[in-house]
Amino acid sequence: MRATTVTLPARAQEPGTTHTIDPGEGGAGAVRRTVLPGGLRVITETMPTVRSAAFGVWAGVGSRDEAPADAGASHYLEHVLFKGTRRRSALEISSAIDAVGGDLNAFTAKEYTCYYARVLDSDLPLAVDVVSDMVAESVNRPEDVEAERGVILEEIHMRDDDPGDLIHDEFATALYGDTPLGRPILGTVDSINALSRDRIHAYYRERYVPSDLVVAVAGNIDHDEVVRLAARAFEAHLTGDARPSAPRLNGGPVPVSPEVKVIDKDTEQAHIVLGGAGVCRTDDRRFALGVLNAALGGGMSSRLFQEIREKRGLAYSVYSYTAQYADSGVFGVYAGCQPGKADEVLSICRDQVAEAAAHGLSDEELERGKGQLRGGMVLGLEDTGSRMSRIGKSELVYESLLPVDEVLARVEAVTPDDVRAVAAQVLAEPQALTVIGPFGDRDFSL
Amino acid sequence: MRATTVTLPARAQEPGTTHTIDPGEGGAGAVRRTVLPGGLRVITETMPTVRSAAFGVWAGVGSRDEAPADAGASHYLEHVLFKGTRRRSALEISSAIDAVGGDLNAFTAKEYTCYYARVLDSDLPLAVDVVSDMVAESVNRPEDVEAERGVILEEIHMRDDDPGDLIHDEFATALYGDTPLGRPILGTVDSINALSRDRIHAYYRERYVPSDLVVAVAGNIDHDEVVRLAARAFEAHLTGDARPSAPRLNGGPVPVSPEVKVIDKDTEQAHIVLGGAGVCRTDDRRFALGVLNAALGGGMSSRLFQEIREKRGLAYSVYSYTAQYADSGVFGVYAGCQPGKADEVLSICRDQVAEAAAHGLSDEELERGKGQLRGGMVLGLEDTGSRMSRIGKSELVYESLLPVDEVLARVEAVTPDDVRAVAAQVLAEPQALTVIGPFGDRDFSL
Repeated sequence: MRATTVTLPARAQEPGTTHTIDPGEGGAGAVRRTVLPGGLRVITETMPTVRSAAFGVWAGVGSRDEAPADAGASHYLEHVLFKGTRRRSALEISSAIDAVGGDLNAFTAKEYTCYYARVLDSDLPLAVDVVSDMVAESVNRPEDVEAERGVILEEIHMRDDDPGDLIHDEFATALYGDTPLGRPILGTVDSINALSRDRIHAYYRERYVPSDLVVAVAGNIDHDEVVRLAARAFEAHLTGDARPSAPRLNGGPVPVSPEVKVIDKDTEQAHIVLGGAGVCRTDDRRFALGVLNAALGGGMSSRLFQEIREKRGLAYSVYSYTAQYADSGVFGVYAGCQPGKADEVLSICRDQVAEAAAHGLSDEELERGKGQLRGGMVLGLEDTGSRMSRIGKSELVYESLLPVDEVLARVEAVTPDDVRAVAAQVLAEPQALTVIGPFGDRDFSL
Repeated sequence: MRATTVTLPARAQEPGTTHTIDPGEGGAGAVRRTVLPGGLRVITETMPTVRSAAFGVWAGVGSRDEAPADAGASHYLEHVLFKGTRRRSALEISSAIDAVGGDLNAFTAKEYTCYYARVLDSDLPLAVDVVSDMVAESVNRPEDVEAERGVILEEIHMRDDDPGDLIHDEFATALYGDTPLGRPILGTVDSINALSRDRIHAYYRERYVPSDLVVAVAGNIDHDEVVRLAARAFEAHLTGDARPSAPRLNGGPVPVSPEVKVIDKDTEQAHIVLGGAGVCRTDDRRFALGVLNAALGGGMSSRLFQEIREKRGLAYSVYSYTAQYADSGVFGVYAGCQPGKADEVLSICRDQVAEAAAHGLSDEELERGKGQLRGGMVLGLEDTGSRMSRIGKSELVYESLLPVDEVLARVEAVTPDDVRAVAAQVLAEPQALTVIGPFGDRDFSL
C-alpha cells in the first residue's frame, strides 16, 4: 500500500485519445479510458478471473437538475428508456437480456442516472447493443409515457407504504427545504401527473448527449473491443468535437434550512432520522468522516448499535450514514422503535452524537473503524457490478479516479485529530429531525 | 455440459472420513467434505482467484420445528447467539469482525438457520473462531435474552409497517393455516413475550448438536486447513460416534387449507399475493416449474410483467415466485397496485395463470426461461457467499450435492411437455389469496 498521495495525470479530453489510468497487475485491475467523438467516454477495468461482465451507461443528470415543474423527470425518463427504441420494443429489450439470464436495471440519483446489465462475458456484445440502444435511441412514444406514468405513481405509493423508506425522502426535505437537493427523486403525484410526453422527450434530448455520458465496463473484457462495440452502438451520435463535460461544479456549500418535521401515520414503529450537513464528495475530510461514521453507527460494534440495540433492546434497525454530493453532504442517524420510546431513543442518539462531537473516538475505535472501511472496500470490489460502478461514477463526478490503494492509504492516514476535527465540525451542524409515527399533532424538539 | 444424469456416490458418514465431491478444474470449484466426530460436517469449495472467504454454520432447525408455544424460538435464538459466549461479550463478537471489515450476519428460515461471515481470505481463521464460538458456546444470559426480546418485538413491528413484507407472512398462514409451515418465522408478539430464557436455552441445547450442524466455506481456502480450524473451534463438542443427521424426511405432501384473507390497513397500495401448493425440494418437476416461473413472472419479459406493468401501467412491483420445502412448496404471484385497480389486477393474474395452466409456454418462452435460469445461476455463483450457501444448504437438505453442470443439464433437458404438465398440475391447485389495503370489510373472492 502506498503511503503517499499520488499525482495523477490530467485526463486526456481530446476525442480519439486512449490512455491507461492504472496498469493493473498481471492483467487484473487495468483501467483504461478512451474519448470518442462527441465527447463520449469509455472506461473499462479488466478482471480476467471472472466469467462475467458488467456494462453500464452513466448519465450526468439527476433530480437536482430539475426545475420545480420538472420534479421527477430524470427518474420518469429512466423508466421510459426501457419502453422502446427505433429497433426494439420494450419486450424485445427485456427479452434479449432475460434470454441470457442477465440482470438489466437502472437507477436514478440526485446527480446521476445509471443503466446497466450484468451478463456472462460472452454475452457482452449483446448487452452493449441493447443498453446503448435504450439510452441513445429511445423514441419515448406518447402511449408508453402514459403507461409508465401509472407505474411511477405506484412506485411513489409503494414508497409511501414503507415508512423506513419514506423517512429518508422526508428528511431530505427537512434538511434542504423545497430545493433541488431537498425534493424527492421520484417527484410527487402532482408533478408526475403534470409532466407531458413532450417535456420528457425534450429533457431526454437536452440531457442525454454524448459529452454527458460515460460507458463503463468491468469484467473479463478487452478495452479495445469494448470501445469498438460502444462506438458502433452510439454511432449516430458520435460527431463533432465536443469534449467530455467537466464534473459538476463544487461551488461551495449548499445552504441548509434544517427543520423538525413530524408525519402523523398509523404505524407500529416510530421511524426517526436526525442529521445535518456533512461533507461534499471532494472534501478531504471525507475519509475521517467515514471512520467516524463506522464507529458511531456503521456496524454492530458501533456506539449507536451498542447503546440502543445491544444494551437496551430498543430498536431492531439503528445506524448512521453519510451521503456526498458535489457541493454538499449529509450525516444522519436512523432508528425505528416503539412510539413510546421515541424520546428515549432520540435522547440517546443526541447524547452519542454530542459525545463524539466533544471527544472524537478512542484509539481502539479509530483502528476498528479504519479496518472496517478497508475490509469493506476490498470485499465490496470483488464483483463486476461494483467495479463498474466505481469507475463509471468516478469518471462522471470526480476530476480523477483514485486508485483503490490510494483510497486505502488515505483511510490509513486518518489521525485521531482528523476525526476529532471532523466530528467537532460536522456533528455540531444544525440538525434536522424527521419522525414518522402515530403522534397526532405532537411536537418533537431537537 | 453433461446431458445425462450422473449417479453420485453415497455420502460417507463415518467420522474421520474425507472425500472429494467434485474435483473441480485447475484448482477451482473443488468441493470436499469431511465428517468430524460427533457428526459435524465440514464442506468447502475452492475459488482460488478471489481474495475472500465466506464461512457459514448451518443448523438444521427452523420455525417449522417449533411447537405452537415455541413459535419464533428458532429466530429468537439466532439473535441470542450474537449476545455472548464464555470467551466473548456481544461487543467482542461484533468488534472482531468489524475490525477486519467483514460482514457478520445470520438468518432463520422455516427449515434451517445460518450464521455467516464474509472476510478477506487472510482473516478466515478469525471468522471461523468467532462464528463457531457464537454457535457452539453461547451462554444465553437471562439479561441478554430479555434485552433481545425488545429487539425482536421491534423487528415484528418493522415487518408490520411494511405491507410488501407482511403480505408474505399473511399468505403463508392463508395457505397452510395455523401449522408449522403457516406460522411466521418471527413468531408473534404474544409468543415472543411468553418465551422464557430457560426455554430458549433448552431449545439451544436440544437443537444445536454437531450432527445437525454443517460448516460450509467457499473462497480462497484450503480444505484441510478449514477442517483443522473447525475441529479446534468445536473441539469441546466433537465426541461420540454420532453420524450426521439425515435430511428432513420427505413424508409426502403437507396438506394445505387455502383461504381468502383480507387485511384492512390504511395503505396507499393494495398488496396482493395469490398462490397455492407448488413442488417440494426434491421433486423432479422443480426444473420445469423454474422455467415456468421465469416465463410467467420471473423477469421483465415475463407475461405478468408485460400484461400488468408494461402494457397497462397498473403496478410497479409484480412477479411470481416459488418456494421449496422438504415435503411441500409454494407457487405464488405478488402485485402492488392502486386499491381501486385491485380487481382488475387480480383478474389479469388469474387469467395469466389459467392460460399457462391450459397451454403451457410458447417455444420461445421456454428457451428464454431456460436461458434465464442458466445465466442467472452462473452469474449468481460468482461470489463466495452464494457458493458457500449452495454447498452448506445442500449438505443439510439434500441427499447429495448436484454439481452446477448437472443442474444446468436438468434445466436444459426440460421439454414443452414437462412445462405443460407441471403448469396443468401446479397452477390448478386450490389457491389462497391475501390482500392488504384500505378495504374495510370488503370481501375478495378467487
